[in-house]
Amino acid sequence: MGSDNPSGAGNQQERLVRRGWVIGFVDGEDCFSIGFIRQKDRVGHKGYRTGYQVAHEFVVTQGAKSVSCLHELRDFFGVGQVLVNNRYDNHREHLYRYVVRRRKDLLATVIPFFRQNPMRTSKQQDFEKFARCVELVDSGSHLTRPGLIEIAEITQTMNRQKPRDELIRILRDHTPDVRDIGR
Amino acid sequence: MGSDNPSGAGNQQERLVRRGWVIGFVDGEDCFSIGFIRQKDRVGHKGYRTGYQVAHEFVVTQGAKSVSCLHELRDFFGVGQVLVNNRYDNHREHLYRYVVRRRKDLLATVIPFFRQNPMRTSKQQDFEKFARCVELVDSGSHLTRPGLIEIAEITQTMNRQKPRDELIRILRDHTPDVRDIGR
Repeated sequence: MGSDNPSGAGNQQERLVRRGWVIGFVDGEDCFSIGFIRQKDRVGHKGYRTGYQVAHEFVVTQGAKSVSCLHELRDFFGVGQVLVNNRYDNHREHLYRYVVRRRKDLLATVIPFFRQNPMRTSKQQDFEKFARCVELVDSGSHLTRPGLIEIAEITQTMNRQKPRDELIRILRDHTPDVRDIGR
Repeated sequence: MGSDNPSGAGNQQERLVRRGWVIGFVDGEDCFSIGFIRQKDRVGHKGYRTGYQVAHEFVVTQGAKSVSCLHELRDFFGVGQVLVNNRYDNHREHLYRYVVRRRKDLLATVIPFFRQNPMRTSKQQDFEKFARCVELVDSGSHLTRPGLIEIAEITQTMNRQKPRDELIRILRDHTPDVRDIGR
């Protein structure tokens, strides 16, 4: 990946330790999320057939003091971006996020990495559910109500994800015009 | 350390990735803590000259679903214990903790490991402060009021540690009998 340099045993060692660091670091966080964004038809914009867009995101958050490790992740994977979340509340430092949202990058880079290098906590099960959702979106499942219901059902069994009962009920009932469910 | 097995290139690779995983996993948590425990003279028990004992702890917490990774940490370091924290509140699962408290184990195993294999976030600075406190305790500094004040001053600059102003004030003032400060 990005910063790999194949020369020398020292580099090889360093690369293996770095790979382990990435697995361990992501293992300690909640990094995989699936959101549902209300997208109905509006002026100049054709909405989604189901009324919802599925947002998939691999994200690692750190305070300003540790932003360098997010750039390391960016270099390691070679995809995604480091973004700033300016904070003007009573927190001590701004937050930074390393984010990969593009489906192509998730499918070609992030998902294969964590399949080949599994985490050691129950986060691996969440990751597998995340990967399954991204693959369902890639196959177009989210464009039909039954497919979107399947994605919502998988999502709500992930750790620290919101219940999606209301969204699932709405999709099942074909309720024509509902308020935004939020992400 | 514990489960290292030096035969074969595959094992060597695996060991390097495992080492990286340990660094990354600890990097994602708050694992180093210093506490102050009121220990005054009482029946059958001679208290500390300063009135306080210093407790030092390397601890990694996980839910029951991920307890196996704590046993992996135990095997990796070869010191410490995995303990259960039974929870009967509304949380979904019991918590487990991998804990190293013995000063000898911290000084001979945990501290050298993170000096040789630094973390990549600002947690490394907290670790350095933790290590400094453990070394001060090892040299007997905590047995004098100025030494204990120095430890308290270092501790309160660590991330997510309580302010220690009250403890420091008490130690400076030589207040003879104060209420328990807690950890």
